[in-house]
Amino acid sequence: MEKILLGHGSGGRLMHQLIREFFVPEFDLKELNDSAVINFSDSPIQQFINSPIRLAFTTDAYVVSPIFFPGGNIGELAVNGTVNDLSMVGAMPLYLSVGFILEEGFPMDNLKVILSSMAEAAKRADVKIVAGDTKVVDKGKGDGIFINTSGIGIIPDGIELGAKNIKAGDRVIVSGLIGNHGIAVLSERNGLSFEPPVKSDTAPLNGLVQLMFDVVSKSASMNPHSAIKMMRDPTRGGVATTLKEMAGDSGLCITIYENLLPISSGVRGACELLGMDPLYVANEGILIAIADPDLADLLVQKMRSHPLGKDAAIIGEVAGSEPRTNGTVLLKTSIGGTRIIDMLAGEQLPRIC
Amino acid sequence: MEKILLGHGSGGRLMHQLIREFFVPEFDLKELNDSAVINFSDSPIQQFINSPIRLAFTTDAYVVSPIFFPGGNIGELAVNGTVNDLSMVGAMPLYLSVGFILEEGFPMDNLKVILSSMAEAAKRADVKIVAGDTKVVDKGKGDGIFINTSGIGIIPDGIELGAKNIKAGDRVIVSGLIGNHGIAVLSERNGLSFEPPVKSDTAPLNGLVQLMFDVVSKSASMNPHSAIKMMRDPTRGGVATTLKEMAGDSGLCITIYENLLPISSGVRGACELLGMDPLYVANEGILIAIADPDLADLLVQKMRSHPLGKDAAIIGEVAGSEPRTNGTVLLKTSIGGTRIIDMLAGEQLPRIC
Repeated sequence: MEKILLGHGSGGRLMHQLIREFFVPEFDLKELNDSAVINFSDSPIQQFINSPIRLAFTTDAYVVSPIFFPGGNIGELAVNGTVNDLSMVGAMPLYLSVGFILEEGFPMDNLKVILSSMAEAAKRADVKIVAGDTKVVDKGKGDGIFINTSGIGIIPDGIELGAKNIKAGDRVIVSGLIGNHGIAVLSERNGLSFEPPVKSDTAPLNGLVQLMFDVVSKSASMNPHSAIKMMRDPTRGGVATTLKEMAGDSGLCITIYENLLPISSGVRGACELLGMDPLYVANEGILIAIADPDLADLLVQKMRSHPLGKDAAIIGEVAGSEPRTNGTVLLKTSIGGTRIIDMLAGEQLPRIC
Repeated sequence: MEKILLGHGSGGRLMHQLIREFFVPEFDLKELNDSAVINFSDSPIQQFINSPIRLAFTTDAYVVSPIFFPGGNIGELAVNGTVNDLSMVGAMPLYLSVGFILEEGFPMDNLKVILSSMAEAAKRADVKIVAGDTKVVDKGKGDGIFINTSGIGIIPDGIELGAKNIKAGDRVIVSGLIGNHGIAVLSERNGLSFEPPVKSDTAPLNGLVQLMFDVVSKSASMNPHSAIKMMRDPTRGGVATTLKEMAGDSGLCITIYENLLPISSGVRGACELLGMDPLYVANEGILIAIADPDLADLLVQKMRSHPLGKDAAIIGEVAGSEPRTNGTVLLKTSIGGTRIIDMLAGEQLPRIC
């Protein structure tokens, strides 16, 4: 009998397969985005409203182990992650719910610390936690604490992000240093310490996204909201898996350049030591945006003025349509080679978020 | 060091204490309802809409053990439970999200069955599952499957349920037989079987609630929506705990009559055998409504025409304000005595939902 494997939770190919084969046929998951976009004018409640309001709705379970790691904890992660999923569809995150599954014997003091950092993270992201639920499972049937956060936000008029907007020539922007979250969790889990220490990048991206839309809407050169084509936060499965999704969804080829990838020396060293590829390591505070070539440089320049965007960089571009390479991601290596980048196949690092 | 106990998840006094002391100070939980009511005209997005739209938003984690029980399974329960939480604030449930925490080794076949019944339950309740997430934890760190569902709904104009509406003389209505879900889960867990068998009552209550509002709005005798004061579904902690919450929130005394409680012979027999009080046993397909005395009889009569309301009954009333009994629930026993009904103190039955 087929069984669930750790890899089914990895964000990579196994998980995509599970979603496609099991979930999509049963549920109303239109696009395999982290947030659903709800257009109220298509819904039974259109009678109650008289404007074309669009809601974003998302959910995420957090099972990261260990629950405290350099740069954050599971509570902060659960708030930021859901804020980011909403932000990636262009929504203003507004309200969060939180569901706890606690294991009998979990220390109250830890719960207190986690709740405080959730409250602080919500404040920082300017969202409200308005609904909650708590369940307790017997000792040995859980792992301390699991947290599920769901979130709702409003998508302002005119913003419609999606793979269908992507065109040949578009630039690939990454907003910050890659690989920090995964390496931070891994080092805590295995008692490793690196010099300089690697900290999780967990952070709410809605402020940075707001800045990006402001830049675009102030530019007279084009339709205010057509310069940013699509955004994703490269969490489980890392930058590689996210780019592969973007290439697959758009049916185009994405080329990135190894020497343009913003990677700290700490992450680089840790990855070399551990035999890991930073492109597949999880991030919790950066985004990848596909942007119009005419505005990409300005966008990156302005992003660098934001604390969460100071290492923003253009790391590649969307190539013209060629049947042989459609849907693929190519990495031009620093020694001049070309590597095909695929999704994470199994599980590089379980329970990373 | 203080630790989490199973009782913290019971729905009873320990849980209320945990919520009051830990959660309320950190989060924006205005009323301790299962659903948050979001008034968009108070929110930063009022600029985007021009009608006083009110959204209900709720979340629930499901950890029931065993995951399959007479009358249902964890998936169905997770859909119905969230639909019901929205319905209890008078909202039309519209969209659901679902987050899975799977244990490594969980059989794919079980997942398939659970997903199918979730899809079926969503169809029955006329809601859409639009967002999802899946995490996998290592073997021994979970218990097969945990499911978190969140839901959003719209509250039609004029509906404002809440304890503040309750007045002396109001009637207490229960929509169906009590105690079925808890006894069904307990019997499956312990390999007991009763004759007649006891099945979970898990069901979506939005249809019944719609019927109730229809009855009220067709009655010319009063303000369309003021006849139904408050509703709750008596899940964890059972009818007793829910009534105690209603009495506490309204500051009034609620009196119920043992001989009016609708209990099946199966549940009655099982409770006698097991030394349990059906008033504290969990339900997943009934509601308690506090209604105006002038409409309560008509309401119950009409509710009985609905499959989920056929055993609806008035079980008590709200007594006049008397300092000595404010916030209390009294049970008039069938032998003529009076018992004070309190919240579930510890844990009668862990992991019931």
